[in-house]
Amino acid sequence: MNIPTNHPRRASLEQRHALEKGLNQGIVTPTGMIAFGRGEAFDYLLGEKTTNNAQKACRAAAAMLLLSRHAVLSVNGNTAMLCAKNVIRLAQTTGAQIEANVFYPPVKKRRALIARHFEKLGKKILGKNTSKKIPGLASNRSLVEEKGIFSADTVLVMVEDGDRTQALRKTGKKIVAIDLNPKSRTAIAAHVTIVDNVVRAVPEIARHAQKLRNKNTEELEKIVAAFDNGKSLKEALAFMKKRA
Amino acid sequence: MNIPTNHPRRASLEQRHALEKGLNQGIVTPTGMIAFGRGEAFDYLLGEKTTNNAQKACRAAAAMLLLSRHAVLSVNGNTAMLCAKNVIRLAQTTGAQIEANVFYPPVKKRRALIARHFEKLGKKILGKNTSKKIPGLASNRSLVEEKGIFSADTVLVMVEDGDRTQALRKTGKKIVAIDLNPKSRTAIAAHVTIVDNVVRAVPEIARHAQKLRNKNTEELEKIVAAFDNGKSLKEALAFMKKRA
Repeated sequence: MNIPTNHPRRASLEQRHALEKGLNQGIVTPTGMIAFGRGEAFDYLLGEKTTNNAQKACRAAAAMLLLSRHAVLSVNGNTAMLCAKNVIRLAQTTGAQIEANVFYPPVKKRRALIARHFEKLGKKILGKNTSKKIPGLASNRSLVEEKGIFSADTVLVMVEDGDRTQALRKTGKKIVAIDLNPKSRTAIAAHVTIVDNVVRAVPEIARHAQKLRNKNTEELEKIVAAFDNGKSLKEALAFMKKRA
Repeated sequence: MNIPTNHPRRASLEQRHALEKGLNQGIVTPTGMIAFGRGEAFDYLLGEKTTNNAQKACRAAAAMLLLSRHAVLSVNGNTAMLCAKNVIRLAQTTGAQIEANVFYPPVKKRRALIARHFEKLGKKILGKNTSKKIPGLASNRSLVEEKGIFSADTVLVMVEDGDRTQALRKTGKKIVAIDLNPKSRTAIAAHVTIVDNVVRAVPEIARHAQKLRNKNTEELEKIVAAFDNGKSLKEALAFMKKRA
């Protein structure tokens, strides 16, 4: 696709094009396309920019990932197509693992396709050997890797289903979420929610992680403790309402 | 698909399922899926109900359609899958024609598929013999039937592209629009905009048309004259902001 570099909707058209490609490859589902559209509506309300509110959440997220013993970045079909390279960079900066974890069937096939997508970019990820289940979730949607999400102390979820975020939180893990809807169940269930487009938020967390990686534990814990997710979500919603 | 009749998200899941079916049939495009998702976000803000504000707009729309010499209901892939039966009923109540008119390629093939979809429901529609263009629009996206949209005095558009709504308006036609985004270019360009889901709005216009069809021209003109689209859109937006 040839989008002129100065096209006012270039970023948005590139994202749509990436998802259409993923749909053709079987990585993205029709429901994933609809979810992306819902996100677009919220992104318009944000002015398609990372707000100060989202910046602060990205900083807290970076600190939380750096404090973890074992962080996992959970990727689904949409995020694989939209921001794989930046997810790899974030994993490198924070020492986190990446695991393919999808909601819509065929889950096994889609997890394998996502893993291959990352392998083509030079990164081996988890998600093919799922022997464990997230408790409290029905069916094969709950399947995770023992050495990945199952044993992680922190999980980053992006554009995630509310049921799964809530189930992950109940296992005692720390949850970082990226979600454009500040009223979604995922946004509410997470410890740190970044209300932003994944395309902008993932590199932004990596940037903060790069700046914070030499801080000591106490300094990082202060950053996390100072972050109030409920207050942050209220701010994000107020920002959208003001712009609407 | 078996959705329990008491499922709280039944209506929404049925709509998604209809679109997925349309995607498999080639009637709906990936971009149409995304557009539907954007609409869902706005529909959440409406509480997924037809507001009093939308009711009033439906009444004005019904009056405008009844006043027309030659009204055409323009259907695209999404609206064909979401509300074909109710579009047929609205055409019968108001004496309007139906024309398949799509934005995304392959336009000729998709117009034919939509026509066949309506034929299966017992209704012949226009859209296959497009010899005329809407002025001011590039490419085959502007193609319309001479005896349909081209010569219509009123066109109902649903989930329409802003460029096309503006181009149609410039031809001097009256435009009725159904659009969940009260700030979209289509919503602003139309004479009467119903901020509602097409699934609810189309039968609602038909209900009003049924009630108004025996009114005389003067009474119908009063209803249309009393409707202020700018004011109505402001009300719709205020309603959403209050609920957000």
